[in-house]
Order: sequence, then C-alpha cells, then structure tokens
Amino acid sequence: MEKKVMMYEGKAKKIYSTEDKDKVIVYYKDDATAFNGEKKGQVQDKGILNNTITSMLFELIEKKGVKTHYIEKLSEREQLCRKVNIVPLEVIVRNVAAGSMAKRLGLNEGFELKTTVFELSYKNDALGDPLINDCHAVAIGLTTFEELKEIYSMTDKINNILKEFFMKQNIKLIDFKLEFGKTNEGEIILADEISPDTCRFWDADTNEKLDKDRFRRDMGNVKEAYVEILKRISGEK
Amino acid sequence: MEKKVMMYEGKAKKIYSTEDKDKVIVYYKDDATAFNGEKKGQVQDKGILNNTITSMLFELIEKKGVKTHYIEKLSEREQLCRKVNIVPLEVIVRNVAAGSMAKRLGLNEGFELKTTVFELSYKNDALGDPLINDCHAVAIGLTTFEELKEIYSMTDKINNILKEFFMKQNIKLIDFKLEFGKTNEGEIILADEISPDTCRFWDADTNEKLDKDRFRRDMGNVKEAYVEILKRISGEK
Repeated sequence: MEKKVMMYEGKAKKIYSTEDKDKVIVYYKDDATAFNGEKKGQVQDKGILNNTITSMLFELIEKKGVKTHYIEKLSEREQLCRKVNIVPLEVIVRNVAAGSMAKRLGLNEGFELKTTVFELSYKNDALGDPLINDCHAVAIGLTTFEELKEIYSMTDKINNILKEFFMKQNIKLIDFKLEFGKTNEGEIILADEISPDTCRFWDADTNEKLDKDRFRRDMGNVKEAYVEILKRISGEK
Repeated sequence: MEKKVMMYEGKAKKIYSTEDKDKVIVYYKDDATAFNGEKKGQVQDKGILNNTITSMLFELIEKKGVKTHYIEKLSEREQLCRKVNIVPLEVIVRNVAAGSMAKRLGLNEGFELKTTVFELSYKNDALGDPLINDCHAVAIGLTTFEELKEIYSMTDKINNILKEFFMKQNIKLIDFKLEFGKTNEGEIILADEISPDTCRFWDADTNEKLDKDRFRRDMGNVKEAYVEILKRISGEK
C-alpha cells in the first residue's frame, strides 16, 4: 500500500490517504513539541522509535481484545491504519499525580491518588486543549454520554493491560493520553499512538523519567530514554 | 439565639458560633469580590438583600423536599443555620453558556447547551478554585463517589425547583453555584447562599443582567439589580 495525498499534519505525525478509502498511512516525524506547541524541537529518530513502540503496544492491546485502528507496521516510520474520524477529546489516565494535574491540584509529583483519574481535554489548539468534564463534552456536541461510557470502559481495560505489561519491564506507568476514533460504521476504536511522547514512564527502582518530560524540562538524554523504553519492551533487557 | 465567637470570615459572610453547638449564625456583609478576590468593592445593603433572597429561596427548596442548613432569618443581616462541615467543592450548574465556561470552551454567552452542565471547582483560594472533575475530587480525598452521587441528585432537584420558580418571575436562571455541608450525623445538606452573588439571572424578555456580573464587568446599577430580583421573587412585580 502506498501513500497518496497528505490529509493531515499534526505535531508528531502525518496522515496520508491510500488507494483504499478505509485505510490510511500514518507517518511518524522526529518533531517534538510541548506546552501546546510553545516549545518546539527535534529528537533524532524519535519517529522511528515511536512507530516501533506504538506498533508493539497496539498489537498487545488488540491481542487482549480492545479494538484499535492499527493494521500493520509498513516501514521504519510508517503504519497502515484504519481510517477514523477522531473524537476531538484527549482521554488522560493518571495512576500517579504528575505534570499539569499535580500543578492544578497543588500536589507533589508522585502523590498517590485515592482513585485512578480519568480526565478529558478538548482537542482545540486555539483554546489550549482545556480540561473539560463529561457534561462539557456532551453539551457542546463533541460526543454523547453513551460514547463516553464506551470510551471509559475501553480506557480502563487499556490501563490495566499497559500497567501490567510495563511493570514486568520494571517501568511504572504514571499517566498517559489516548485518542479514540469512529469508523465509517460508527464503531469507536483506539487511535493515535502510545509512546514516550504520550505517556509518563518512571523506572520502578529509581523513578528516573523515561519519557517526553526529559524534552519538556530540558533534562537531556531524550533519545536515550526512548531507546531504553524500546529495549525494555522488546525484552532486550 | 445570640452570636458568640466568629468562627470564620469569608468574602461575603461571617459565621458565628452560638450557645447551641449544632447551630451557627450567618451574617451577610456588603463586601463584593470577583475573580478570586482580585477585584474588591462594596455594594450598599447587599448583605441585607442577599440574606432576604437566600432565606426565601432556602425556604422554597426546603418546602420542595431538599434538606438545607437554613433554620430561620433572625434579622436584616442574620440567619440561624445548622452547623456543617463544608465539602470543599463549588458545585456549578449551567443551563446556558456564560462566564468562565463560555470563555474556556470558546462559546458565545447565551449558547444553548445540548445538556445541563454540572461542574466542580476545588474550593482552594491559593490554587484559584480550579475546575476539577469527579475523579480529581475523590483522588485527593475531598469527597467520595457515593457523596457525589447524592450531591448531584440534590443539585438536579434544586435546579428544577429554581428554574421553574424564576421563570414565573420572568427571569432566566443561566447558571448558579451551590455548596454542600455535612452535619455531625454525616448527612449531606445544602449550605451557603443562593443570591445574585452566586447566580446569573437574565431578564427573560431583554436578557438584561440582574446579578453580580454588573459588579464584575463595571456595568453600574448593581444594587438596583439585586433590589429588582428581590422585588420579583417577593411578588411585588
């Protein structure tokens, strides 16, 4: 299958149409952004690493019974995926307090939450992807309560799959972001990516950060952290 | 019943202990604040007007079967109330988009929502009373999912009671803020106030604002708006 027209360019990926109207090719770039695009940079080979990591994780999630847009890895930077209409929500899962939630609630990073937190952000760059709740999402027509119920149920399953998987590699899954899409048949499936760009990974022994926070916070060794994640989930360590 | 020790001074009210450990006297001040205390002023007789309006509305809500902290009006500025521990949440109901929600979601004020919006803010001045969701509130120990279910059920009833009541006075109830308290017996009851300080009221014919937005936005005739609300709900117009 070959790339035809570029339909969309996001911060870290491009989406191309193919000869099959129900399939797209996702191309992973090396571009890195943070703080709603205010900070910009590049991480060498990030696209190759994130394509490989995402492909492995989506295969795992599919195998465990959650439907995703992923079909197959085509090349270093390319995946073949089902075409979906993205639900304009970021679904964020927080197992441990960190990042924007820690700041918003006045918590130290690492604070142990009394319940797993599911959060929604409205995907809207002009508004800065604001935190919203379920009522907001329904009130402005982004989704329905029925769809949200399905999305949360899938999100909960994915969290359990990933937490267990990463703990076996001695990695704590602190938080992560998911996006869902609707197929032409109206089915909700997991879309987008799961990578150190979209998750916080802490080494279970040292709490060393192995994710995009190294880029956000100018901590250095960004590529090395992504390589370390790939090594561990490939069973090379 | 007489005031003993001042236990708490908020932005618009003071709370005094009484000889009965289960009862407090609430004193309504003329102080007006907005934007998390950044804007400060006084509205002459506001305390008298809000005490009177709140007393009438809490009597109505009690009569309709929702339990509140309100016992009786003692004087121009004073109410006798049951003592509660305030749940540190602002529960906001939005029937129509306005104020901070309209700004956050990029909506015009007056936008018709596809569902009634319930919102939570974490009552924490140092953090600026941030918008949170149910998971956040439970994750940091402010409440439980069971308590939230009860709070939302009461909030929904109160919204229906107030919307109907105000529509009879030709007033649209755009949005409002509630606070709940827990009695020593662990029962959740409505607390705080319901007044033009805590609601948005628009004249049903002209959309003229009859609430604290006149203070927030320097529109003038603040006291006159509060007087107008009191007149209408007293059946004087």
